[in-house]
Amino acid sequence: MNGNFFEDFALGQNIRHATPRTVTAGDVALYTALYGSRFAVQSSAAFAAAIGYPQAPIDDLLVFHIVFGKSVPDISLNAVANLGYAGCRFLAPVYPGDTLSAQSEVIGLRENSNRKTGMVYVRSTGLRQDGTRVLEYVRWVMVRKRDEAAAAPGDHVPKLPDALEPAALGAACPPIEQNSYDFELAGSPRRWGDYAQGEQLDHRDGMTVEEAEHQLATRLYQNTARVHFNLFTEKQGRFGRRLIYGGHVMSIARALSFNGLANAFHVAAINGGRHVAPLFAGDTVFAWSQVLSRAELPGRGDVGALRVRTIAAKDRPCADFPYQAGADYDPAVILDLDYWVLIPR
Amino acid sequence: MNGNFFEDFALGQNIRHATPRTVTAGDVALYTALYGSRFAVQSSAAFAAAIGYPQAPIDDLLVFHIVFGKSVPDISLNAVANLGYAGCRFLAPVYPGDTLSAQSEVIGLRENSNRKTGMVYVRSTGLRQDGTRVLEYVRWVMVRKRDEAAAAPGDHVPKLPDALEPAALGAACPPIEQNSYDFELAGSPRRWGDYAQGEQLDHRDGMTVEEAEHQLATRLYQNTARVHFNLFTEKQGRFGRRLIYGGHVMSIARALSFNGLANAFHVAAINGGRHVAPLFAGDTVFAWSQVLSRAELPGRGDVGALRVRTIAAKDRPCADFPYQAGADYDPAVILDLDYWVLIPR
Amino acid sequence: MNGNFFEDFALGQNIRHATPRTVTAGDVALYTALYGSRFAVQSSAAFAAAIGYPQAPIDDLLVFHIVFGKSVPDISLNAVANLGYAGCRFLAPVYPGDTLSAQSEVIGLRENSNRKTGMVYVRSTGLRQDGTRVLEYVRWVMVRKRDEAAAAPGDHVPKLPDALEPAALGAACPPIEQNSYDFELAGSPRRWGDYAQGEQLDHRDGMTVEEAEHQLATRLYQNTARVHFNLFTEKQGRFGRRLIYGGHVMSIARALSFNGLANAFHVAAINGGRHVAPLFAGDTVFAWSQVLSRAELPGRGDVGALRVRTIAAKDRPCADFPYQAGADYDPAVILDLDYWVLIPR
Repeated sequence: MNGNFFEDFALGQNIRHATPRTVTAGDVALYTALYGSRFAVQSSAAFAAAIGYPQAPIDDLLVFHIVFGKSVPDISLNAVANLGYAGCRFLAPVYPGDTLSAQSEVIGLRENSNRKTGMVYVRSTGLRQDGTRVLEYVRWVMVRKRDEAAAAPGDHVPKLPDALEPAALGAACPPIEQNSYDFELAGSPRRWGDYAQGEQLDHRDGMTVEEAEHQLATRLYQNTARVHFNLFTEKQGRFGRRLIYGGHVMSIARALSFNGLANAFHVAAINGGRHVAPLFAGDTVFAWSQVLSRAELPGRGDVGALRVRTIAAKDRPCADFPYQAGADYDPAVILDLDYWVLIPR
Repeated sequence: MNGNFFEDFALGQNIRHATPRTVTAGDVALYTALYGSRFAVQSSAAFAAAIGYPQAPIDDLLVFHIVFGKSVPDISLNAVANLGYAGCRFLAPVYPGDTLSAQSEVIGLRENSNRKTGMVYVRSTGLRQDGTRVLEYVRWVMVRKRDEAAAAPGDHVPKLPDALEPAALGAACPPIEQNSYDFELAGSPRRWGDYAQGEQLDHRDGMTVEEAEHQLATRLYQNTARVHFNLFTEKQGRFGRRLIYGGHVMSIARALSFNGLANAFHVAAINGGRHVAPLFAGDTVFAWSQVLSRAELPGRGDVGALRVRTIAAKDRPCADFPYQAGADYDPAVILDLDYWVLIPR
Repeated sequence: MNGNFFEDFALGQNIRHATPRTVTAGDVALYTALYGSRFAVQSSAAFAAAIGYPQAPIDDLLVFHIVFGKSVPDISLNAVANLGYAGCRFLAPVYPGDTLSAQSEVIGLRENSNRKTGMVYVRSTGLRQDGTRVLEYVRWVMVRKRDEAAAAPGDHVPKLPDALEPAALGAACPPIEQNSYDFELAGSPRRWGDYAQGEQLDHRDGMTVEEAEHQLATRLYQNTARVHFNLFTEKQGRFGRRLIYGGHVMSIARALSFNGLANAFHVAAINGGRHVAPLFAGDTVFAWSQVLSRAELPGRGDVGALRVRTIAAKDRPCADFPYQAGADYDPAVILDLDYWVLIPR
């Protein structure tokens, strides 16, 4: 219960994480209340059934957060920083009633030169009760050593993909009955072919975050990272207050992206994500996206993929698409997320 | 995604609103957590089944808020003010698992003399997945023009009923097995015949509203009105802070009204509603009601209707029934709601 | 709706409390979001089914809070203080879909010497829709008199047990398939036999409470005690702010106790509980536990019982196990809870 320190990890180590979790209609309602998401496939059983899902699937990022949360007690309880994600793929749909569990393999370890911390790379996998893999991703974190004098437990940095290939996408999306996809009901007429590479979309709305909200969210994911919940300790820490779970920002940005990407009903993969700056309660999150590229999925005429960069910023509307300022990020930017979404063709 | 401006509407126009929404036990739990509602029929499947419902129905106002929320992006995203409701009838019960969608017909348009805004009247309808109408109501809002020079898109103010006739009530209430209605378990011995026209009821309790609460509620309804969520923008606005969704006040007042109206298990219709003054986080809502009239429902011996005026006030207990002060409302009043409830005879 | 005053009670009186409540997956999700509980049996249908439950049971304290909430309008609306619990036993598991109701018997009454208040002792029982008792407990509260001159309605103080006997435990726990209990997935290898009497466990994490959170929780339980919701009135009261429901602290402490008691999957009984000091929003709750004793359950080789004292403290980490300071409690202590948990052998 004190979590692993850097020297506790070993290359190739496999960790089965605690607390399996059955996802239900209750989680779906809370997710809606927390983010106000409006994608029709996840919102409506009738809409989902019409296009070929057996029922409304669980929001992809809710699956991500639950799987991620399970890994926290073993992987990142002693993390100084959560540095990045790569190679995140959704492999099978998750429905209410499914039970999720998680495991991680340690695929990289490198001690930092100060010998106080080290980088830990893990490939985490989310599993359904029948053993089906529903999600996998790599993340890397900087973890404290318990004892500076301890030997480094390994020295290997894995090669990670910049982005998933289109051929790797779509496993979690059943064949879609395009003729039954009601674009009016979904909120936008724009299909895959209507987006152009390089196109920039201001998602317009802003959402202010309250302490109670991010705490409810992060506990819903059974994520035990202490910085999110413990004002007593954090008051004395680096920021003087509770830090909001980075995944909360991802879900807000995704919900805001409905304004412009209403038919991007499925996050098929996350190529990479950076939590550029922390978010605190009282801040207002805005977001915008750029279409990085378009891709066909091999063998699928029903849906196409858009590779999208979504930028979230705090206390700054995004009509002028803030991103970089010289070599650095614009100081308002808090999230830089590169991912693939699927849209009907 | 910028919403319609006054000149974008046309008389007779029909709009199918986006994002169908399946209502579940998760929404019911959240609604209970947000308002603490205690009406037995909605709270207990066993109670509901005993009196003739197939299962516990979804709270009427939750249905209203979800249908209302869907209309916001098309009707009132550019509204200056939400001016009123009329002729709201609940037409069929809604149960967990049902999917709701909404559509609106533009039934009135009148430009204001300043030519900057206009009144838009819509009749909105909530539909179940099988096409059954579950709710209809008229609302009118004052909407900004995009371009002051634009021609008015129409000039017609519809005639609206002051109140629904008793014969129009009860479609959403199945025949009730009165002998199985357990008044003790429901919290009060008072039947329809025990209320007198003119009777005033202080609902006694007060409920303080937090920012996180009204944001969770309003997102649960997928209501995208910006004033409720965006502190960054609202700080610079008229009130300097986020405005609470008027429907949140309606649900608080309805929940408080259990103290005095415990057996008023169904809101059959809303004759009219005025959000007299804004509510902000930190304020405490109190409420009282007056019985405006009693009515039998044609052909029904199981339930009777009470027409009730419920007044909500902020930071002011209602033991002395605050309402008007001269020609104006008492300054503490925030809601004046005129509606029909059904009670066992 | 004004609640009972001391002189309104009678020895032997039976009260059926209002508002039956169907518990659902929605309540489970909210409970997770409010406390972040990680006990595998309640979290995972698959885990629960593997060890012999028909499905994941409702968290024991959620059942307690719902039953307790129902008794508030009749028993403690005019309470000055909620003084204690005794003899609380969980008698049958509760599953999503079950409807809970509650009744209380007045088993003790004693007027205080100032004649302004009196002690009321009630035995409350929670019932499932089929009449099965799922929970019973005694609580006593100090209740105001409406009229100081009124005669005391009785004079009897019941004899209450210090603790439940082991033979009285386990009715709500089906036989557990130990071989199917996955200790790794549950988060700890520690079995019943691995705990020693007197052992102290620091639960390490702290959780800060927000106003919105405890209000959502307490309304979820349909608990109408005014001190939790009404800032307008409480501002003028003893503490100048809203008081957090004591049961909220119990659930936080129970969730924190996962760090150290991960396999203590069932609260079988509460021997006694004292809310030593009030908790307010903004405070951070820490907790630690001591194993008071270990007991076998007659005829059961699957699970054993630990009698545990869990102490919650505010704004004070518990690594040094704060408890008493001379004859008094340590000033940081807010809860002293003595209960029995079951753990696989």
